Amino acid sequence: MENGAPAWKFRGKEGLSAASAITVRGILFELMANLNADDGRTMVPLGHGDPSSFPCFRTAPAAEDAVVDAVRSGKFNCYGPTVGILPARRAIADYLSCDLPYKLSPDDVNLTLGCTQAIEAILTVLACPGANILLPRPGFPYYDARAKHSHLEIRYFDLLPDKGWEVDLKGVEDLADESTVAMVIINPGNPCGSVYSYQHLKKVAETARKLGIMVIADEVYGHLAFGDTPFVPMGVFGSIAPVLTLGSISKRWIVPGWRLGWLVTNDPNGFLKDTGVLKSLKGFLDISSDPPTFIQAAVPHILEKTNDDFFSKIICILREAADICYEKIQEIPCITCPKKPQGGMFVMVKLNLSLLEGIKDDQEFCLKLAKEESVIVLPGKLSLSNCW
Amino acid sequence: MENGAPAWKFRGKEGLSAASAITVRGILFELMANLNADDGRTMVPLGHGDPSSFPCFRTAPAAEDAVVDAVRSGKFNCYGPTVGILPARRAIADYLSCDLPYKLSPDDVNLTLGCTQAIEAILTVLACPGANILLPRPGFPYYDARAKHSHLEIRYFDLLPDKGWEVDLKGVEDLADESTVAMVIINPGNPCGSVYSYQHLKKVAETARKLGIMVIADEVYGHLAFGDTPFVPMGVFGSIAPVLTLGSISKRWIVPGWRLGWLVTNDPNGFLKDTGVLKSLKGFLDISSDPPTFIQAAVPHILEKTNDDFFSKIICILREAADICYEKIQEIPCITCPKKPQGGMFVMVKLNLSLLEGIKDDQEFCLKLAKEESVIVLPGKLSLSNCW
Repeated sequence: MENGAPAWKFRGKEGLSAASAITVRGILFELMANLNADDGRTMVPLGHGDPSSFPCFRTAPAAEDAVVDAVRSGKFNCYGPTVGILPARRAIADYLSCDLPYKLSPDDVNLTLGCTQAIEAILTVLACPGANILLPRPGFPYYDARAKHSHLEIRYFDLLPDKGWEVDLKGVEDLADESTVAMVIINPGNPCGSVYSYQHLKKVAETARKLGIMVIADEVYGHLAFGDTPFVPMGVFGSIAPVLTLGSISKRWIVPGWRLGWLVTNDPNGFLKDTGVLKSLKGFLDISSDPPTFIQAAVPHILEKTNDDFFSKIICILREAADICYEKIQEIPCITCPKKPQGGMFVMVKLNLSLLEGIKDDQEFCLKLAKEESVIVLPGKLSLSNCW
Repeated sequence: MENGAPAWKFRGKEGLSAASAITVRGILFELMANLNADDGRTMVPLGHGDPSSFPCFRTAPAAEDAVVDAVRSGKFNCYGPTVGILPARRAIADYLSCDLPYKLSPDDVNLTLGCTQAIEAILTVLACPGANILLPRPGFPYYDARAKHSHLEIRYFDLLPDKGWEVDLKGVEDLADESTVAMVIINPGNPCGSVYSYQHLKKVAETARKLGIMVIADEVYGHLAFGDTPFVPMGVFGSIAPVLTLGSISKRWIVPGWRLGWLVTNDPNGFLKDTGVLKSLKGFLDISSDPPTFIQAAVPHILEKTNDDFFSKIICILREAADICYEKIQEIPCITCPKKPQGGMFVMVKLNLSLLEGIKDDQEFCLKLAKEESVIVLPGKLSLSNCW
């Protein structure tokens, strides 16, 4: 101990950095570090569900106005209640109820910091000792990171590329056992760009009921469907099996940086209360951070005053981008796309490595694409979670 | 299983609601529920460090302008980096460096969702198996809730009412062992209203060095000192022992609902890097939610453009309120206050239960005060943590 420097006893907990290494953020950071800073090209960022930096994706004026008005009022500088302020919860209940066969109450709605915190909340609440959760493959790796962090065992079911990335329901039944508590579906799909039909979602609910598990329905891309299949919220089937719907204004309003999301219980039969899930969820929210109060206060105006032209314009741009992307992929021999995206902001493609000299896998392809062409795309490996 | 309703396998995790039961929010909820709705009185809310609903505590115009400008620019609707955007981190580094004998770098600064998430972050990072942490008694119960949630053992050291609520440093030395990793100090004090002298803080750092532990310095009430002792940041002593400073704009700018805080490493010798604390902290932040990007973007203007008159006015009002509170307490036989508050937003008093007929403890006193007089104050029991 030179110069009398003490032997410090504190250490950083292990495992935290391992969890973050498999997030989209972690991989993006690695790819960005691989850009060639000297070649003067502008980076083409295709690795993130965040087109907000492009001028054509500027959010609705009504949304900006709502936030500005809330700040200027001076009435929302205070702490908010842990579940969120009532007018915001009521507005979200009404917004979602439009597409449901029953009416949600404000008490079904909990405000969260984007969809991210909603994922954190429900995975923390469900992580009883020994429990396991079924995640889609390909999927969104934040679920893996959070489940790992909460010591919730992960089991993967496949999405079927030849069936428009539908859930392999037979596979789900084979995977589940007495300790399985939930399955996650992401619709519209991230990263596959799929949109599930009413019939398929109903089968998902029936499978969940048969297995005695809940459905966690990630609808962060809700309403962003531009193909033949209309968006149907999973909550429609909440009376078959309890559904926890995760959503946010991030994608439909192109404001992911505003961090306003929700976790909603679609459970007309009250099973989530009976099983203690609601009590535990309230406990989680009591010791967690909330969205800023003035952003909560803006929610009713954002939901009610954004006009349909804004939504139509966004859908048109997304459809056009998906069309161009799909057509151009047809011209590239080493890449195939099993199905044109029908919704969301991503497309999942297959690499033919035998045509790619000197590239051993998708990760290397992405790193080289960043370095040589300044184009950022994400490796499929990430969403296939085989790096675990 | 009536009507074929399945036996649901999911359960809410236990322990989450137990943790929330000892938070200020939990107790406030209970007290509010005890208000007499029929007596027509306006509630007097004295249980929260949040005076933002009183018009005289309206935040600075420069702060409102900064947020509005950031929203109107349309440039900050995007996701931010996990540690926070660089201009905000640089502005906070400069703001804090004014009072330090060395200069902080933006890389020393991590943005958090208020001070709350900074507490969550560091307690999660330090919760290696078997580790224990030293917390002040009286203290801020959120530390207890989060330590409990992370399975970090808690040991309490006393604050000494007869010495202006200074830390019982002898007690700290007696409590610590080979598994002790950190001690928490809250300065200006919550809930005691104390402000520590330069000499006392130096002794705290020397004790930490001797024990080989870090100091977690909660300075959420930083600069809100209105007595004889000026506010000195703990970071001044960062070269004696590593200091993690937690702060936010919540209290000094009276905007707790904006949820903008920071976690700053005051560690010129780099011990936090060597021990893996920084790596683990980065891992935590990678899988956690961030403050909204446009609020981050407003930080440089908020810190640089708020004029001194605003701060002076807030200090004057707080001093006046503390004076009135202290004087009036002298007139009440059943309440004594060991020392007039010197900073922050709270005063800690002692109840003489022998003079309070039919009241068995502080909690009952608070419940009856809410019911009979519509005045909300917090039981000392909460900050003494003897309900664990």
